[in-house]
Amino acid sequence: MLTRTLSVAGLVCGCAAAPLAVAAQTPAAPATATAFATADNANPVLVSSDDWARMAEAGDRYPMFAAERVRVELEVRAAMHAGINVPQPRDLGGGITHEQHKANYKAIAGAGALYRLTGDRAYADFARDILLEYALLYPALGPHPAGRSSVKGRLFWQALNDSVWLVYASQGYDAIRDTLSVEHRRRIDDDVFRRMAAFLSEHNADYFDRIHNHATWATAGVGMTGYVLRDPDLVDRALRGTRLDGRGGFLRQIDLLFSPDGYYAEGPYYQRYALAPFVIFARAIERNEPERGIFRHRDGVLLKAVDGVLQASYGGLIIPINDAMPDKGLDSEEIVTGVAIAYAQTGDPGLLSIAGAQGRTLLSPDGLAIAEGMASGAARPFGFRSMQLRDGPDGDLGNLVFLRDGGPEGQMLVMKNTQQGQGHGHFDRLNWLFYDNGVPVIRDYGAARFLNIEAKNGGGYLDENDSWATQTVAHNTLVVDGENQFGGDWRRGEAHGVTPLLFEIDGGAGVQIASARTADAYPGVTLTRTLVLVEHPDLAFPLAIDLMRVEAARPGLYDLPLHFNGHIITQGFQARHAVSERPVLGDRAGYQHLWVDAQSEPGEEGRSLTWLLDGRFYTYRFAASAPTRALLVESGANDPNFNLRREQALIRRMEGQADASFVAVLEPHGAYDSTAETVTGSTSRIREIARYRSGDAEVVVVTLASGKLLALGIAGEIDAGRRHAVRAGDHTYQWAGPWARFDRETAR
Amino acid sequence: MLTRTLSVAGLVCGCAAAPLAVAAQTPAAPATATAFATADNANPVLVSSDDWARMAEAGDRYPMFAAERVRVELEVRAAMHAGINVPQPRDLGGGITHEQHKANYKAIAGAGALYRLTGDRAYADFARDILLEYALLYPALGPHPAGRSSVKGRLFWQALNDSVWLVYASQGYDAIRDTLSVEHRRRIDDDVFRRMAAFLSEHNADYFDRIHNHATWATAGVGMTGYVLRDPDLVDRALRGTRLDGRGGFLRQIDLLFSPDGYYAEGPYYQRYALAPFVIFARAIERNEPERGIFRHRDGVLLKAVDGVLQASYGGLIIPINDAMPDKGLDSEEIVTGVAIAYAQTGDPGLLSIAGAQGRTLLSPDGLAIAEGMASGAARPFGFRSMQLRDGPDGDLGNLVFLRDGGPEGQMLVMKNTQQGQGHGHFDRLNWLFYDNGVPVIRDYGAARFLNIEAKNGGGYLDENDSWATQTVAHNTLVVDGENQFGGDWRRGEAHGVTPLLFEIDGGAGVQIASARTADAYPGVTLTRTLVLVEHPDLAFPLAIDLMRVEAARPGLYDLPLHFNGHIITQGFQARHAVSERPVLGDRAGYQHLWVDAQSEPGEEGRSLTWLLDGRFYTYRFAASAPTRALLVESGANDPNFNLRREQALIRRMEGQADASFVAVLEPHGAYDSTAETVTGSTSRIREIARYRSGDAEVVVVTLASGKLLALGIAGEIDAGRRHAVRAGDHTYQWAGPWARFDRETAR
Repeated sequence: MLTRTLSVAGLVCGCAAAPLAVAAQTPAAPATATAFATADNANPVLVSSDDWARMAEAGDRYPMFAAERVRVELEVRAAMHAGINVPQPRDLGGGITHEQHKANYKAIAGAGALYRLTGDRAYADFARDILLEYALLYPALGPHPAGRSSVKGRLFWQALNDSVWLVYASQGYDAIRDTLSVEHRRRIDDDVFRRMAAFLSEHNADYFDRIHNHATWATAGVGMTGYVLRDPDLVDRALRGTRLDGRGGFLRQIDLLFSPDGYYAEGPYYQRYALAPFVIFARAIERNEPERGIFRHRDGVLLKAVDGVLQASYGGLIIPINDAMPDKGLDSEEIVTGVAIAYAQTGDPGLLSIAGAQGRTLLSPDGLAIAEGMASGAARPFGFRSMQLRDGPDGDLGNLVFLRDGGPEGQMLVMKNTQQGQGHGHFDRLNWLFYDNGVPVIRDYGAARFLNIEAKNGGGYLDENDSWATQTVAHNTLVVDGENQFGGDWRRGEAHGVTPLLFEIDGGAGVQIASARTADAYPGVTLTRTLVLVEHPDLAFPLAIDLMRVEAARPGLYDLPLHFNGHIITQGFQARHAVSERPVLGDRAGYQHLWVDAQSEPGEEGRSLTWLLDGRFYTYRFAASAPTRALLVESGANDPNFNLRREQALIRRMEGQADASFVAVLEPHGAYDSTAETVTGSTSRIREIARYRSGDAEVVVVTLASGKLLALGIAGEIDAGRRHAVRAGDHTYQWAGPWARFDRETAR
Repeated sequence: MLTRTLSVAGLVCGCAAAPLAVAAQTPAAPATATAFATADNANPVLVSSDDWARMAEAGDRYPMFAAERVRVELEVRAAMHAGINVPQPRDLGGGITHEQHKANYKAIAGAGALYRLTGDRAYADFARDILLEYALLYPALGPHPAGRSSVKGRLFWQALNDSVWLVYASQGYDAIRDTLSVEHRRRIDDDVFRRMAAFLSEHNADYFDRIHNHATWATAGVGMTGYVLRDPDLVDRALRGTRLDGRGGFLRQIDLLFSPDGYYAEGPYYQRYALAPFVIFARAIERNEPERGIFRHRDGVLLKAVDGVLQASYGGLIIPINDAMPDKGLDSEEIVTGVAIAYAQTGDPGLLSIAGAQGRTLLSPDGLAIAEGMASGAARPFGFRSMQLRDGPDGDLGNLVFLRDGGPEGQMLVMKNTQQGQGHGHFDRLNWLFYDNGVPVIRDYGAARFLNIEAKNGGGYLDENDSWATQTVAHNTLVVDGENQFGGDWRRGEAHGVTPLLFEIDGGAGVQIASARTADAYPGVTLTRTLVLVEHPDLAFPLAIDLMRVEAARPGLYDLPLHFNGHIITQGFQARHAVSERPVLGDRAGYQHLWVDAQSEPGEEGRSLTWLLDGRFYTYRFAASAPTRALLVESGANDPNFNLRREQALIRRMEGQADASFVAVLEPHGAYDSTAETVTGSTSRIREIARYRSGDAEVVVVTLASGKLLALGIAGEIDAGRRHAVRAGDHTYQWAGPWARFDRETAR
């Protein structure tokens, strides 16, 4: 039998920042008999027979569990009615054979669970018969004919989907394996699962050993297959990589793909996707090798990852930074899975309210726990909060900041100071987003992709993902000289983190502040951005204040876009409008996709833009240290296939400066009620904004309509003791430390 | 006392098409004492003391009623807390004084009701004190300073709002009038209500006598004031016009503004708005002069009007034909009022489900009936159905057709064959809309207006309402020679109806069909359009088939726009794309607002466009009798103030033909589920469409992917017995009568 000993612990401890708690707590010892039953024992191991019995006995007592059982029954019965269909692989994502193989692994998993829950052999036989078809099909398969992925699958166009198939089908197989004849078991063991595991972990060993979410699905699939087939070598390969040296494999992925705060390098959308194999496989490990304490690994980072992806959501949708579908919600299968597994580990009643909103849970012991919790009325509101998720394996490569106010449907300011996020990362360091009233107000395009819609590039990423969605100008951060950050080379981006300067929640002062700096995005240019959510008793909602500071070795062209969402109500500046012929703003780096609607002359006067979105008004006021043009643009140029959504943006453009400051204040106000036909507060409650700078410190002064004055001092260097004095006309603002808030009753 | 005798009945009977049932049933007689109590009796008359007592006694027994009472209490208490504010009128719609005067009439009405429901004199005193402020303010007022309406108000920028004030404030006043000292009562009677009634019905007599919804509010306000003040002359003027000859006034409005089916000439959006004064005043008439049988007037046309506006909705929103805000829902105050009043008259349990969706009802005896019905579980689904609403006082000026399938969230095809609809009408005869899956798929822009948002032209109609929203090209109907129907002159349009040819629901054949013709929209051009909703067992959803036939004295330029809603997935035709400079399609008649994105060469091959909307695909296939270009355009050109929403359209353009046929098939198909990441049926189930014509009959042939063939024969002349034969290759379709459906198993 397997000896899983210090070699593993030693490996993991090799990651200095994350000593392996498990290793300390669990004496090195051979794996127990529980973990690896003998090969002729075919009892379920991914869920124990006892747990299945307990779930079967629960019957209809817990509505969420009962509803999921009904849902799965309907799905599986429909599949049984349609008959077994294991087609020769042919299509890209979204195509018929693709969807059929997806449906098949769901049917296998569902039928396996239903057999355990009902005792009805028809379910077991159905799963068996599908798998026997795969046992006929699979050995004869070569690379997928339509594969365009760098690593083709056999059943699917990319190996990723083959891995997912294995993760789910292995669970169904585990549930029925003890019903099979020896011959059937051998055929399915050998001709399906062992071959697929070999395909992933031997034929594609380099792929399998990557530190990447695709490889996590692969290790999970192979590792779970290992438990089911009682094959410790497969498990070992899954955990420690094909070379068994821990430089690849699941444990290494946990160490490198998550930051200590549970942030996943590619961003929340892929964190959601990556989460499923991490927690599903971890659950299998926990059950079969509890002595590993996998959920305590790295201070419980897998559970932090579940919390993190929930925190990185607004209005039930995951914030779409980096490559991300903006309509992806917390109700996705992966998060249903993550929430159930996390709840079983933590008992956090806030997770129940998420499960309630998801409206479903799993047919698993964890899903039963969720359903029991819901039925007992234990659910509490989930604890959405202002927080930072540090990025990087050691947490020192930047952060993703959430500043929240006013509850789940209130304000959420997101600041993206993360590292690149590999090939799915966008060139948008120091980007910000703003949510309010349940919807995105300052937004991110997300990915240019129609997931699984074959007519749109086979459901994969579109060319416009590279030419628009990833580009700096498609985000709310500074573009220098019309170029992308890092020259548009994600590998260059990957080499550089962002330096967070401030993250502070000062409830007493009504101020939440975050700032960060990068000197790497553009050669010779240091960008420092400070974003603040600040409350004032005269205002119904907090203001978002933005100070973008540029310090450069030579003058440049600076464009600061704001991708706002809503219908323009008042354009608070003069501009020439391109009303009868619409030019394109540029020819590369995303600019080729922007139609120009209006362009102002360079000016220094106070400017604003007011728009209406879902019954609330937003006024954005902006100023800068030198004359800027204001451009109103819309995406959609050079898009002959209509691949882009058309969305407006404001671009502030400054030319010929080296050092520069851009300040802005975003004010949510008022209400438009289409039912009652009432309008209130359609006029901004701010009279004007101004900025002043002395030395390396800056003050943003907001004068309210009431005459009251709110000022925010922001230091260039954030040493705690350092003193700053900024002249603003005949008044001098003085403070010590990184920032200060000043309130005055009247402007004078 | 008043004698309301044959002179009234005679007047109404003067409208030949609508003999006055009341007159026949009720002997001419002096009004009863009930109707006009003596002037020194100040008991409530709009709602009786007994009814108020019954409502007070209901307490919290009926949740909807209790909730409304709480809502009104919160509103009135907030107003009491804020203090009385009766400002000098100054602002346009949406401005501060405008909103305050609106808030005041709500406060007066609410406080009056609450006084009756609670017995708390504080409410009565509050309403009194507001009214006493009006008694000080009103006599000194001249025309509203910001008035730009042709008929300015005194409190508001347009007299319309003054009328609305009177309708609501008179109800509140009625409820508290018996609490007042003689002196207070005299001041409020004389200096507020009598003066306002005089302002509307004497100073603006022409306005008051118009047959128009603004005048309905005026007659309702004046008539209700008449009941409250025990002034039969006011009531008489309201009912029969200022000249008391019945050529104006409320009864004449009922006769002329509604068709026999309850359709209101300006369209459903204004029907919704007009409904309130009609049913509120009718309710007051019913209570004070029940012998009029006002709800039975013209075969119950007011109740038909309530039903009609509900039928003219989809997904809770009123279909936005003519000037209409597309976000206006069935939950608007006017429809809450209409539903409650109609339910009290009819007891239709379907109305309860509408009330349930509205989520509120009135603090009135009718609202109590709704709340009782809801509490008793009597609600049933509202009977949305395929139907036509004939237009015109005699029902002979066209129709508005609704073809429905698949329940409230299923398919709804709207065909607009109405008359012009006065100044709020659009130039869009034979226009069609299509709803599916809860959302508009083929849509109407509605009005170009930001209701009550002062920054947008004071909340009134924008210039773009004339230049875009009303224009023919902004609709889904044929434009000839780039001109509007009727030369864009609504008065010319008003002179011509549309001739409906067919309206037939043939459940057995799975066919719902409507057609209509106009020879007046363009000189020398006859347009005949047939729209069909047709089911087929191979298809998940019915198809919409469209045949637009043009017969003209000379060749013309024909443009047939399709304002589709969704993201283009597949452009099934070749075209040149304006990717780097976007031209404008034309310079007038709405064309100046269209950017051109793509334009094909003229062609006769089968073409299609597939788009995705809310998780469902739509494929539109189109063909014609001569080569056509396909243009993809988007609104938003020549719109320097960003007043327009930007929406795409497909335009089919044919040049140089006199007679022409345009056919098209719209097919909803498939599903995209962003949560489960599954796509099904993204490919159309139709292989091709074709059209054939012999004589004056046409056949549209739809070949399904399955090889099955569905053909629809449509006759040019609809005589029942007439026989038709159309050659289609080597097959001849033969039938008798206006239309026929043919199904064949294979294409050959």
